[in-house]
Amino acid sequence: MQEFIKVAVDAMGGDHAPDEIIKGAVEAIKLRKDIQVLLVGQQEILEEKLRACSYPEEQLKVVQASEVIETAEAPVAAIRTKKDSSIVVGMKLVKNGEADAFVSAGSSGAVLVGGQVLVGRIKGVERPPLAPLIPTEKGVSLLIDCGANVDARPSHLVQFAKMGSIYMEHVMGIANPRVAIVNIGAEEEKGNALVKETFPLLKACGDIHFIGSIEAREIPHGGADVIVCEAFVGNVILKLYEGVGAVLVSKIKAGMMSSLRSKIGALLVKPALKQTLKSFDASEYGGAPLLGLKGLVVKTHGSSKAKEVRNSIIQCVTFQEQHINDKIKENILREDG
Amino acid sequence: MQEFIKVAVDAMGGDHAPDEIIKGAVEAIKLRKDIQVLLVGQQEILEEKLRACSYPEEQLKVVQASEVIETAEAPVAAIRTKKDSSIVVGMKLVKNGEADAFVSAGSSGAVLVGGQVLVGRIKGVERPPLAPLIPTEKGVSLLIDCGANVDARPSHLVQFAKMGSIYMEHVMGIANPRVAIVNIGAEEEKGNALVKETFPLLKACGDIHFIGSIEAREIPHGGADVIVCEAFVGNVILKLYEGVGAVLVSKIKAGMMSSLRSKIGALLVKPALKQTLKSFDASEYGGAPLLGLKGLVVKTHGSSKAKEVRNSIIQCVTFQEQHINDKIKENILREDG
Repeated sequence: MQEFIKVAVDAMGGDHAPDEIIKGAVEAIKLRKDIQVLLVGQQEILEEKLRACSYPEEQLKVVQASEVIETAEAPVAAIRTKKDSSIVVGMKLVKNGEADAFVSAGSSGAVLVGGQVLVGRIKGVERPPLAPLIPTEKGVSLLIDCGANVDARPSHLVQFAKMGSIYMEHVMGIANPRVAIVNIGAEEEKGNALVKETFPLLKACGDIHFIGSIEAREIPHGGADVIVCEAFVGNVILKLYEGVGAVLVSKIKAGMMSSLRSKIGALLVKPALKQTLKSFDASEYGGAPLLGLKGLVVKTHGSSKAKEVRNSIIQCVTFQEQHINDKIKENILREDG
Repeated sequence: MQEFIKVAVDAMGGDHAPDEIIKGAVEAIKLRKDIQVLLVGQQEILEEKLRACSYPEEQLKVVQASEVIETAEAPVAAIRTKKDSSIVVGMKLVKNGEADAFVSAGSSGAVLVGGQVLVGRIKGVERPPLAPLIPTEKGVSLLIDCGANVDARPSHLVQFAKMGSIYMEHVMGIANPRVAIVNIGAEEEKGNALVKETFPLLKACGDIHFIGSIEAREIPHGGADVIVCEAFVGNVILKLYEGVGAVLVSKIKAGMMSSLRSKIGALLVKPALKQTLKSFDASEYGGAPLLGLKGLVVKTHGSSKAKEVRNSIIQCVTFQEQHINDKIKENILREDG
C-alpha cells in the first residue's frame, strides 16, 4: 500500500480529543483517497467510537498508545517517561518511516521537544522553528518562529527565513515570497542587537527575496509573506492576534445587541459578517509545521475541532508531494558547503 | 500667575500640525481654567492662525521656534543641530522650569532623545520608559516600555514596573494596580533569559502588586493594569494592536457592504458600532508619558487630531497635581538607600 501518504494523528491531544480528532481524520480520508491515517491512542476507546462512523477501512488504522501527556506536564520529563503516550508513539512512527507525518493538538511543549529528540533535525538545521500561518488582509503569511527557541542567534533566523521561503513557495504556491524581519522601524539601523546583526545576513542571502524590516502594524495588512522573528516575539504576535481579534469581535457583538434598532440590523448583517470573520480565522489554515525535522510534525491549536484537524492532515500531503524536506536539506547543505 | 499648570505644546509636530494642535490647545484651555499652554513653533504662522480663534488670552502664549525636526531625521543629530526647533525649545522650557510639561506629536526618536538629553533623568532612574495606555475589554492598561530602550536589563524592567504602578494608581485612579510581565507561558520557569532573570526580582518587590506572567492573548482582555516588557516587545504589541484592529474593522465594513441585505443592516447597527469602536480607540486616552524625567514629557501619536492633543494636555494636570515625579523620586531613592 505504498501509494498512501501516511499521517499519524494524536487522537488523545487537545481540548476536544478524541471525538473531534476522529471526526477530522474521517473527514480527511473521505476527501482524499491517497491518505492513510494512523490514529494513535487508547485502542479500546478509539475502536468503540469508530464503530459509529463509516469510512474506507483500508485508509484508517488504530495504533495503540496507553498513555496521554497532559498540557500541564513538564515537556522534557513527559517525553522521557511516558514512552507509551500518543505523542511518543506517533513521533516514533515518523522516525521509523512507518508514517510520513505526525499531527497533534496536544501539549505544545511536548510536541516541540519530541520533534527534536525523537524525530530529530535534518543535518545542518540548527533549530527547528514552529511556523503557523496567520490571516492577513490579503491572504496568509507565515510567522516563523513561534516555537520554544527563545534567545535565538542570527544564524538561526537566517535558516528560518530560508525554510519559511521554501514552505510558502512550494506548499502555499506563492512565487518568490517576500521575506521581512520584524522590527521597530523601517530603517536598517533600527532594532535590537539581534535584528541589527541578522539584517545584513538576510540582505546577503541570494536564495530569498528579502524586503527588509516589517513593523508589527503592517503584518495584518499582509506586508510580507514570510515574517521572520525569534520565538518570544513570534509568540507575542500570534497570541495578540488571537486576543485582539476575540475582544474586538465580542465588543462588536455586544455593541450590536445594545438597542432594538441595532439588534434588527445585526440579524441582517450576520451572514455577511460570518463570512468576513471566517477569512480572519487562523483555524481555516490548518496547523503549524515544525520545520527542519527528518519528517513532518504539525502542531494544531489545542482548541482544534474536526475542521482544523482535517485541514492539517491534508496539508501533510502537499508537504510530502512537494518534497519540502529534500528542498530544505539541499538548501542547508549548499549553505554549509 | 503661578496658579497655572504650564504645558508647552509642540505646534509643529505630527501629521496634522499646526491646525489640529492649535485646535486641541484651544479646546484644552476652554475646558480647564488652571492650564496655560505655551504653543511652541513658528510665531508668525501660529499667530496668524490664532487670530481666527477665540480663547482666554492669558491662558495661551506663543513661544518662537524657527525650526522643525522631521520624522525622517536621525534623532540624536537633529536634537544636537536644530537648537531652535519646536522640540528643543519646548524641552528647554521644561528644563528651565518655565513649563511643567511638554506635549509633542512629532518625531518619536527626537522626543525620546530630547527627553533624556535636554530634560534629564530623575536621579536613580536608569532609563526613562515610554508608557502608552492601551484599550482593553475592561478599560485601559499601561504598556511599559514602548520606547527606544531596546536590549533592556532586568533592573530597568523592575523600575518600569514601579513607575508604571505609581502612574496607574495616582493618574488613572486604579487602587493597587496589578502588575504582570509579558511572557510566553503562565509558569515562572518559562520565558527568555531577560524574563527569567526579571521574574524573581519583581516577585521580591514589596511596593508593587505583582501577579506574575501575562500571555499576549490576555492583554486585550485586561489581564493586568501594568504590562511590563522591554521596548522591542512593547513596540510590537502597540503596533500590532493598531494593525489587527484596523484590518478587522475594515474587513467588517467591507463584509457589511457585500449585499443589499447587509447594507440595510449596516445602517441600523452603525451608531451602536461607532460607540463600541470608540471605546477601543487608543486616541481616546491621550498620549504616552515618558516617565522618570525631571519634568513631564508626553508623546502623542503622529496622526493625533485635536481631541488627542486636548486629552494629552489635560492629562498633564493630573500628573502635576498628583506629584507623580516626587513619588517616583521617593520610590527610586528608597530603593537605592
